[in-house]
Amino acid sequence: MSQTRTVTELAEHLGGTVQGNGATMITELGALETAGPDALTFLANPRYASKVAETSAGAVLMAPGGERYGRTAIEVANPYLAFAKLLTLFYTKPHEPLGILPGAIVSNSATIGEGASIYPGACIGRNVVIGARTTVYSGAVLYDNVVIGAECTIHANAVVRERCQVGNRCIIQPGAVIGSDGFGYAPDGNSYYPIPQIGIVVLEDDVEIGANSCVDRAAIETTRIRRGTKLDNLVQIAHNCQIGEDCMIVSQVGISGSTKIGNHVTLAGQVGVAGHLTIGDNVLVGGQSGVAGSLPANAAYSGSPTMPHKEWLKSAMVMPRLPELKKSVSALEKRITELEMALKQNRQES
Amino acid sequence: MSQTRTVTELAEHLGGTVQGNGATMITELGALETAGPDALTFLANPRYASKVAETSAGAVLMAPGGERYGRTAIEVANPYLAFAKLLTLFYTKPHEPLGILPGAIVSNSATIGEGASIYPGACIGRNVVIGARTTVYSGAVLYDNVVIGAECTIHANAVVRERCQVGNRCIIQPGAVIGSDGFGYAPDGNSYYPIPQIGIVVLEDDVEIGANSCVDRAAIETTRIRRGTKLDNLVQIAHNCQIGEDCMIVSQVGISGSTKIGNHVTLAGQVGVAGHLTIGDNVLVGGQSGVAGSLPANAAYSGSPTMPHKEWLKSAMVMPRLPELKKSVSALEKRITELEMALKQNRQES
Amino acid sequence: MSQTRTVTELAEHLGGTVQGNGATMITELGALETAGPDALTFLANPRYASKVAETSAGAVLMAPGGERYGRTAIEVANPYLAFAKLLTLFYTKPHEPLGILPGAIVSNSATIGEGASIYPGACIGRNVVIGARTTVYSGAVLYDNVVIGAECTIHANAVVRERCQVGNRCIIQPGAVIGSDGFGYAPDGNSYYPIPQIGIVVLEDDVEIGANSCVDRAAIETTRIRRGTKLDNLVQIAHNCQIGEDCMIVSQVGISGSTKIGNHVTLAGQVGVAGHLTIGDNVLVGGQSGVAGSLPANAAYSGSPTMPHKEWLKSAMVMPRLPELKKSVSALEKRITELEMALKQNRQES
Repeated sequence: MSQTRTVTELAEHLGGTVQGNGATMITELGALETAGPDALTFLANPRYASKVAETSAGAVLMAPGGERYGRTAIEVANPYLAFAKLLTLFYTKPHEPLGILPGAIVSNSATIGEGASIYPGACIGRNVVIGARTTVYSGAVLYDNVVIGAECTIHANAVVRERCQVGNRCIIQPGAVIGSDGFGYAPDGNSYYPIPQIGIVVLEDDVEIGANSCVDRAAIETTRIRRGTKLDNLVQIAHNCQIGEDCMIVSQVGISGSTKIGNHVTLAGQVGVAGHLTIGDNVLVGGQSGVAGSLPANAAYSGSPTMPHKEWLKSAMVMPRLPELKKSVSALEKRITELEMALKQNRQES
Repeated sequence: MSQTRTVTELAEHLGGTVQGNGATMITELGALETAGPDALTFLANPRYASKVAETSAGAVLMAPGGERYGRTAIEVANPYLAFAKLLTLFYTKPHEPLGILPGAIVSNSATIGEGASIYPGACIGRNVVIGARTTVYSGAVLYDNVVIGAECTIHANAVVRERCQVGNRCIIQPGAVIGSDGFGYAPDGNSYYPIPQIGIVVLEDDVEIGANSCVDRAAIETTRIRRGTKLDNLVQIAHNCQIGEDCMIVSQVGISGSTKIGNHVTLAGQVGVAGHLTIGDNVLVGGQSGVAGSLPANAAYSGSPTMPHKEWLKSAMVMPRLPELKKSVSALEKRITELEMALKQNRQES
Repeated sequence: MSQTRTVTELAEHLGGTVQGNGATMITELGALETAGPDALTFLANPRYASKVAETSAGAVLMAPGGERYGRTAIEVANPYLAFAKLLTLFYTKPHEPLGILPGAIVSNSATIGEGASIYPGACIGRNVVIGARTTVYSGAVLYDNVVIGAECTIHANAVVRERCQVGNRCIIQPGAVIGSDGFGYAPDGNSYYPIPQIGIVVLEDDVEIGANSCVDRAAIETTRIRRGTKLDNLVQIAHNCQIGEDCMIVSQVGISGSTKIGNHVTLAGQVGVAGHLTIGDNVLVGGQSGVAGSLPANAAYSGSPTMPHKEWLKSAMVMPRLPELKKSVSALEKRITELEMALKQNRQES
């Protein structure tokens, strides 16, 4: 996929400004230390600014006004983001509009958008609607009445169950399940009667779901993941959850039913969140934490159960010293008893 | 699926008693606050009893003898359960007996029960037996010699490996794996030799397995999940486990090999259970707990390692105050040293 | 699969030495307590040596020089390992070289090794190479340019994404995903821009991947799992990780990006490991631990965050006693205050 482009062409692609020789030919991307004269590199962290002087790269992405040591540069506000965009340009395969390939199983009542690709072994149910330029890989199963937006990628063996809706530019990694039944039961003596889970899941635009993650359909209404939120692998989102925009839900996190999560929240790996809670905007929860109560916005939390992250850091430092602390208390107890006896004796003597 | 029914018809369906106008026509179900005159609602929690006076619902499910404020009511012993049953009646699609659909891959030696539905892309191995009115969705794979009971639902891309047995009315959510090889190895110098896992998995009647959950086959005999037990998503059951009846195993729980779990046990989300343990009947284990030893019946536990739940609640409250506690002990130490010196001085003076 | 073999034949298979009657016919394997005269059993734990006197088994696997109480024995250095090898011999189905079965979807450009078996519904992409005697079960999907070695088993609905490489004798359990995109994003205002994950995954020889486990492809280079390492079910390996040889990664473990794990490391169930760490050779980490910093080799750790395992054992014992400890400190505080007052009074009096 890689091909030669001039620095000027790349600057135009990024909306950046060329400093130096815009005619420099770029054929690949590389790191500051290892990039050669045909490669473009980037400076994101000002700590490494002096490395620009030594790089052999043909050009450098950097923030406006930085010292370029005579190198050809493309100035952009966010060099790391710009580099990611060039990785896409240079190295990712553009969408192949293959249509419905032989071996794909597509219901007659399904609507397949222009330029979509449906791979062999994909199964598309009745009345499914698939947007333009979307790819559905082998073994992916879309149940009846599913709606998938444009420019999505539904990877192999992912499943979207009946009536669930996926926005535009969503990516569903292999094996992920959207719309499995919520875990809801009515006690019936010692047994449990399964409460029909008649709601759906809605994934808004630009949502990504990691491999083998699960998002349960709502009991009655909608489990919703809002625009731009990314789920890592093996994440569990229970029924009726509302996850805000631009959240990062790291691997193996589990969120129990009916919990509402604000915008721009980060839950680190293996966090568990209880049901019916509210997590405010911009909250950050540390790995393996157990969220047992609602969390106010704009703060970091850790621990199981959670406490403010800074408190947890201090508590965690005491943890390995608990046996020592316990011994200290026993020793103090003994010294105090001795003191008390000594004082009593003093009094008796005096 | 929804259609009109009279209150009397619904009462008969539930085995309940009509109070008021049995001829009232019901077309949908709703909440006490929002249900209209064509809707039936329910009162399960006595705390909301006064809302019955204000509801616009055409009829109310309630416990016998409750104040119905002149509303039409259906009296049933368990209104929540009855409401769940009506959700099933009104809103769930009845089983479609579709037979073997084109695109399904079914071995000639398989036996498919009457009224079963095998979707395109499902793969049914040699000598598999599938009971009456069971549905196998696209991409589900049943290895050779699998037995599935009647009225089961095997969702898309679920896998049941060779010789495993599934009872009647079981539901296996998408992507779940039944009968994967247990994690057993014999050390061979620094390396590991895989011990053949030649046993099977048996799921008894009315068992449900959540999306992408895994139940490993036994090393030699049977990993068994007894009647009525429900597994949520992403649960791990290791080889040789015996899980009792009517248990609730919440998402992301992991149970290690050869552990025996009693009846009516609830393990909350992300609990881990070590191997070769015994958990008694009616035990409840709190979220994220780590069960490192066997647990006696009829009690609640939490923590990692577990302790009685009430003790854990108290310990968890001390956790954030550990740094403060440590400072207190240091301060006491200093005060005691001063006291000791003062007393010594006193003695020398006296 | 079972058939009759003489003790001498079995000894030759194992490279062991016959003591007693090598002509004894063996048809099955069993436990010391229950094996009959046609069965072979084993003695691995010297604690049970006296049971050899009472067994009805036709022959016993045991370490050289053990007391055989007149029984026919096969002496081998590692009886447990030898027994596992006989389980394989007696009870595991040998590979069936079925070729490409009808209903398998195999690209014309794929290369399928001699004696391989590709089941109906398996999907093999462009330029895929599959080694000799490898089995690919129904619903497994190999994306374009995947390379699979010889004598591998790729179970149903497993997915290997584009360009990833699998060594010889690897086993991938159902639903596992190899090569999903790493979880990498460049902040773009409040939103996140997905960084193309253009690297691959390499599984070396004799690696096993549990059901529904996920191994993410590297951002640029290679996520690597070295020879002989075994992953249990529902494990997450993030992008750029390097996992050493002969490791045991138990169920539901999650390892964050770019972490390096040495050889012969055991991570027990539900352990979480942060990113960019180094774990030394022969490390053992206890269940549910949270590894927040690098861990030196040849030691055992537990806790979240981790500490040396022995320290953790002591700390964990104090945990349930924290409320009591806190009360003790308060009581000491009171007693000291009283002592201080008493001493002050003494001084005033004297």
